[in-house]
Amino acid sequence: MMKNKGRMIVVSAPSGCGKGTILAEILKDDSFFYSVSATTRAPRVGEEDGVNYHFISNDEFEKLIAEDGMLEYAKYCDNYYGTPKKILEEKMNEGINVILEIEVQGAMKVREICPDALFIFIVPPTISELERRLRKRGTESDDVIAKRVSEAAGEIQKAVNYDYILVNAALEDAVEDFKTIVKAESMKTACSKNLIDEVLKNA
Amino acid sequence: MMKNKGRMIVVSAPSGCGKGTILAEILKDDSFFYSVSATTRAPRVGEEDGVNYHFISNDEFEKLIAEDGMLEYAKYCDNYYGTPKKILEEKMNEGINVILEIEVQGAMKVREICPDALFIFIVPPTISELERRLRKRGTESDDVIAKRVSEAAGEIQKAVNYDYILVNAALEDAVEDFKTIVKAESMKTACSKNLIDEVLKNA
Repeated sequence: MMKNKGRMIVVSAPSGCGKGTILAEILKDDSFFYSVSATTRAPRVGEEDGVNYHFISNDEFEKLIAEDGMLEYAKYCDNYYGTPKKILEEKMNEGINVILEIEVQGAMKVREICPDALFIFIVPPTISELERRLRKRGTESDDVIAKRVSEAAGEIQKAVNYDYILVNAALEDAVEDFKTIVKAESMKTACSKNLIDEVLKNA
Repeated sequence: MMKNKGRMIVVSAPSGCGKGTILAEILKDDSFFYSVSATTRAPRVGEEDGVNYHFISNDEFEKLIAEDGMLEYAKYCDNYYGTPKKILEEKMNEGINVILEIEVQGAMKVREICPDALFIFIVPPTISELERRLRKRGTESDDVIAKRVSEAAGEIQKAVNYDYILVNAALEDAVEDFKTIVKAESMKTACSKNLIDEVLKNA
């Protein structure tokens, strides 16, 4: 059977929803590739080139823009941030799904450029549970937690603009649900254009 | 978490694709219900009321039509055949998925009436494999097999009108794929209308 092209998967979630942990589990599977953003800002202490970001010069970034090499980009505080396109296309052509971890606004921008991408929004089981998790960390003040919870509530309302809503109640289930979505999507008629021809070969 | 409503699932497949075997496995799970058609024709030897069909009188059938009690119906050879609506709605309200096993033309009729239903088309891995399976049964003449294979090839081209194409290469995988599709669909944003409210409760 001919291999399907890999899928572009855009993942968003409010902070504290366990998105990073879920993606770390997903990425243990070779059929997924994590898209590392490029930026012109200087690396911070502990940041690694190619892991946290691809740290490139202003000239390199602008050359990529000019060559249509960025899927999307934005400039904040005089620094460019963007998603290099070439590697994503290469991986997808190999049948590998590429994961873009971006915030709601960026995700909606990608939706316009890549309507075929898959949009998954991760939510906590309840907002009270999110608050409980943030408190349990014990790293932030009550004020900061209240602010985060209120921001999360606002973001979660944007989930309606995504294709799927994944509830992270338990890590293992959430990881399985994520894979279930991707597997089911691969059986969609729209993703199986060559499949009917394959089945009917020699008919 | 509030229970989602059950889904209407329309399943079609050319004869010999193993649809019956897959559905028998799926129906072992209580969260699925098989929609038994109603007919006014007389039961054939071995047919059981409520299993193969609901055998009802002409008056009863026409009363159901008049009461808008049929999801869809047709008349062949002076006999009515149709899908009673009430039981399906009851089951779906209980969160149970209802399976309608119908041929392509009927399926497209249901699509018009129930655009929210889920449409799955089952195909063999290849048309040659379908032929091999039909021969293996050893119950039909070469002529009949050739006719069936040619009909199947024609039907498979209609698969493009379905939401998902499920390849039945191995029974166990096909059953799992079927459940994967239904599970993923339950996480679709459109099926999770109350979910966001639930998450944001007490926010």
